[in-house]
Amino acid sequence: MKIAIAQLNPTVGDLSGNSNLILEAAKKAATEGANLLLTPELSLIGYPPRDLLMNPSFITAAGEQLQQLAQNLPGDLAVIVGTAIPNANAGQKGGRSLFNSAALLSNGTVKQIFHKRLLPTYDVFDEDRYFEPGEKSDYFQLGNIKIGVTICEDLWNNEEFWGKRSYADEPFLDLVKVGVDLVLNLSASPYAAGKRGVRSAMLQHSVIRCGIPIIYANQVGGNDDIIFDGSSFSVNRKGELIQVLASFETDFGVLEYDEAKQDLIGIPSQSQAENHPAQLNFAPQVGDAEIWAALVFGVRDYVRKCGFSKVVLGLSGGIDSALVAAIASFAIGPENVLGVLMPSPYSSDHSVNDALELAKNLGIATQILPIADLMKAYDRTLADLFVDPTFGIAEENIQSRIRGNLLMAISNKFGHLLLSTGNKSEMAVGYCTLYGDMNGGLAVISDVPKTRVYSLCRWLNVGEIGNESVGAVPPGPPIGNEIIPGNIISKAPSAELKPGQIDQDSLPPYDVLDDILQRLIEKHESVKQIVAAGHDEAVVARIVKLVRQAEFKRRQAPPGLKISDRAFGTGWRMPIAKASFY
Amino acid sequence: MKIAIAQLNPTVGDLSGNSNLILEAAKKAATEGANLLLTPELSLIGYPPRDLLMNPSFITAAGEQLQQLAQNLPGDLAVIVGTAIPNANAGQKGGRSLFNSAALLSNGTVKQIFHKRLLPTYDVFDEDRYFEPGEKSDYFQLGNIKIGVTICEDLWNNEEFWGKRSYADEPFLDLVKVGVDLVLNLSASPYAAGKRGVRSAMLQHSVIRCGIPIIYANQVGGNDDIIFDGSSFSVNRKGELIQVLASFETDFGVLEYDEAKQDLIGIPSQSQAENHPAQLNFAPQVGDAEIWAALVFGVRDYVRKCGFSKVVLGLSGGIDSALVAAIASFAIGPENVLGVLMPSPYSSDHSVNDALELAKNLGIATQILPIADLMKAYDRTLADLFVDPTFGIAEENIQSRIRGNLLMAISNKFGHLLLSTGNKSEMAVGYCTLYGDMNGGLAVISDVPKTRVYSLCRWLNVGEIGNESVGAVPPGPPIGNEIIPGNIISKAPSAELKPGQIDQDSLPPYDVLDDILQRLIEKHESVKQIVAAGHDEAVVARIVKLVRQAEFKRRQAPPGLKISDRAFGTGWRMPIAKASFY
Repeated sequence: MKIAIAQLNPTVGDLSGNSNLILEAAKKAATEGANLLLTPELSLIGYPPRDLLMNPSFITAAGEQLQQLAQNLPGDLAVIVGTAIPNANAGQKGGRSLFNSAALLSNGTVKQIFHKRLLPTYDVFDEDRYFEPGEKSDYFQLGNIKIGVTICEDLWNNEEFWGKRSYADEPFLDLVKVGVDLVLNLSASPYAAGKRGVRSAMLQHSVIRCGIPIIYANQVGGNDDIIFDGSSFSVNRKGELIQVLASFETDFGVLEYDEAKQDLIGIPSQSQAENHPAQLNFAPQVGDAEIWAALVFGVRDYVRKCGFSKVVLGLSGGIDSALVAAIASFAIGPENVLGVLMPSPYSSDHSVNDALELAKNLGIATQILPIADLMKAYDRTLADLFVDPTFGIAEENIQSRIRGNLLMAISNKFGHLLLSTGNKSEMAVGYCTLYGDMNGGLAVISDVPKTRVYSLCRWLNVGEIGNESVGAVPPGPPIGNEIIPGNIISKAPSAELKPGQIDQDSLPPYDVLDDILQRLIEKHESVKQIVAAGHDEAVVARIVKLVRQAEFKRRQAPPGLKISDRAFGTGWRMPIAKASFY
Repeated sequence: MKIAIAQLNPTVGDLSGNSNLILEAAKKAATEGANLLLTPELSLIGYPPRDLLMNPSFITAAGEQLQQLAQNLPGDLAVIVGTAIPNANAGQKGGRSLFNSAALLSNGTVKQIFHKRLLPTYDVFDEDRYFEPGEKSDYFQLGNIKIGVTICEDLWNNEEFWGKRSYADEPFLDLVKVGVDLVLNLSASPYAAGKRGVRSAMLQHSVIRCGIPIIYANQVGGNDDIIFDGSSFSVNRKGELIQVLASFETDFGVLEYDEAKQDLIGIPSQSQAENHPAQLNFAPQVGDAEIWAALVFGVRDYVRKCGFSKVVLGLSGGIDSALVAAIASFAIGPENVLGVLMPSPYSSDHSVNDALELAKNLGIATQILPIADLMKAYDRTLADLFVDPTFGIAEENIQSRIRGNLLMAISNKFGHLLLSTGNKSEMAVGYCTLYGDMNGGLAVISDVPKTRVYSLCRWLNVGEIGNESVGAVPPGPPIGNEIIPGNIISKAPSAELKPGQIDQDSLPPYDVLDDILQRLIEKHESVKQIVAAGHDEAVVARIVKLVRQAEFKRRQAPPGLKISDRAFGTGWRMPIAKASFY
């Protein structure tokens, strides 16, 4: 029996568009002789639909679209589609009004429905907001084979693998008990650095424990702050990875279930993408190539799904905007990127030169808009009010906000999406200006620590970019030459908002800062623990205070591409009005 | 037996400060001869603590603070404190790592713990993110009396009252079955217009059904976007409201449980606030006085908890900024409010005059900063780039962003909190400029529809403001005269970003718009339903499109005070990159 996997990139809420993606994949599967097609979690409505699910007419329309799709599918093919199904008993028995479900479509009808049992409600997830957990795990019979159906988190409660239990139930073991031959998983698992390897290691562990093969179909696509990397895979009963689909692009795969061997076999598909990872290593050190690919894909998909074709960003001559310009150039092509240089009297000469050299390397257009005239106009306007002439935060921020205004004016005038360029270290300690350099529709590197910004730029210059998939089109700038000018990497980082200012005037070195921040933000360590790890107590206390005070800025930040286990944004819900505590 | 209620205003995360509030209330309760003191939900840590709960050292510190508090309490008094308690079995059995609990402190120790069973995970609530539901309801014995303990949502699953069941369990009925004499409820129930009456009607219904009296202690305070109104109350076994505490301020009450009558009796307390609502009517039409009081309180508490003492806002001469200036003046005193007039060449003469008259009525200081010079400086800076001289959105937004920059410069220079002044109707359809008039630390009226803005201003001018509590200090501007100049109310609303522009050039009349918006946003109606209610289909379709397109703006808006059942912000989680659907 042949089983196909469609690693789809649905658009949230686009019922007819997503239905067409499923239909196209079904035709492809039929052509390749498949008996069954597996699609990702909520493939019909896109993940995460969030509060679109609260709209009853949306749920009704999804139901109608599912019936329509069932009728349009090729005759002999069974297709598993992810969608939200009303919980008919909610009003009488209590519970949420929907299930997160997998529908088995076959012979023109919806033949069977499976409900997700384990609902993630941590980090970026809010599934308990919408869904009632399914009560039991179930399977369907295809020919002689019993096929168990699970949805994403259902397979993540592997107590032996994690060393702890996250939920009372373990659906995989329940399916093993009822004697299934194979387990399918419809997934929408967000990308984080290194997570591809975690997924495969965990599911290989489950398989080895029980001897039941798994086919794991993950969504691909950039949806606001969340990047879904795809990287779908299949594990045979020995626990071997027998097929891995592409990361960061739509893909399609076919497998054979061999009834005699009671096992899965990967078979080549005519439709499979060429650029897929050779393996999904469980590597503690995540490479720059992987993060680069994630960011390029995240920008590309957000720009497309929001209906833009071009982007604009400020080029300061610094390393953050250089990296974002490079990412954008590879994401949507250098011809679609406009870099705007806005030097002030405090900008060093090399800033403009470095930015222009970068733009030349990337092949992007530039505009130079000096802001001295505007700074003077603000000074004149505020002269009577600002009787204290001390140059401080207010005066620094005016410059940043002039630049933010000019960039938004260009965005509004020409319909370019503005990309903001702040990194995670800055966002953490508040070294960024709200309504200034934080302006933008997408914060490209707001989950990338400064030390990683450096390593990405160095990696970019080594010229190994071709080794990691960044998707098929557009091809991006020529590879092999220096992309980020050496001076941008080697000079001391500075906001250049006053003469001679550099970041390290008021912050510890970035390797120290980033270690403290990772312990605070991703590992939830206390001040005591961080100090015990070797950091200076006064420094840690100051960083903690800065992080707390910047909460109001982060609340108003644009969506930022998530690449870590804990990004600011949807998965970071911190009160503003609060006492300090770490 | 005497039972006291402390309607407290804790600060989120301020363990020692909140502990002191509880201790002070306990001393007061002891002085008044009480045997038991009831405090609100999570009174030790403040509600909602959000991701502070993910910090293990915070939970440890809360545990230590609870033990310390138990030891410091007056000897004969039992005190019920709300706090988060670790779920010791989470790692073995699965489930969240915490309980939302009530701790009974008595004789220097933590005597008993009660866990919340029904965890709200809708609207602004995320309790499933942090808490494991308690398995059963329990009571404690005080003298001869069995007292059941419930926490907030535990009492909200009254199937008969709502006509539907929201959760499988109904803790109140479980407690009735085990024969309790009295039920306590620790609550942190956010304000929404009319909700005071809903709460009392629901609990009166529960009481009448079972004949068991209820004491309901609600938190008071403004925490970011959420206003907790307090309005704690008690219901005797006949279902009568026998005591109602103040709305929008800290309060304290004492009741007697009469063992012979097996019922509660309200008794006067020396410490009770004077301004409490006479009744909590279940009124379908919510008055302006209630909403006014909520907004005044929300501003006051946010300003205080964020450590500010003064605010600044732009005064356009329009009705929105006029209302916000009035609210701020009553919230923190007119001497702490700075109004900034920033006329452009497109501003009408009356704009400046109207704003100055308003400022005079309120007694607030003003500054006039004309922006023509800055507009010209932007024109000069962008001249080479903006070869198309058509005046459009870009040019309109530049003006708004100049104003936003000037206001932030003042905020930064003088340490004033900037209040933004956009109303809900504008925020819905995107008639506001991101990084312009949306700038601010708090969006005061972003949940107030334009039609309500008008009625609030008219109500304000009638001079009945003294009839509703707006808290004790400061007293606010003199009452009785016209506060909002008549011309501000009567003139056609306009953003004045181009000559002769008025809002109704491109929007339907505000009564039509607000009805469509309420149906879309609060009632989740479909286009078909809204049209069936009598609205023009083309108008509805255009509004739906505008609402969808403005999602990216709302994502970057400051926290806005929630006064409706569905406000933009924490309780509105809509994807940006999505297909349109309503």
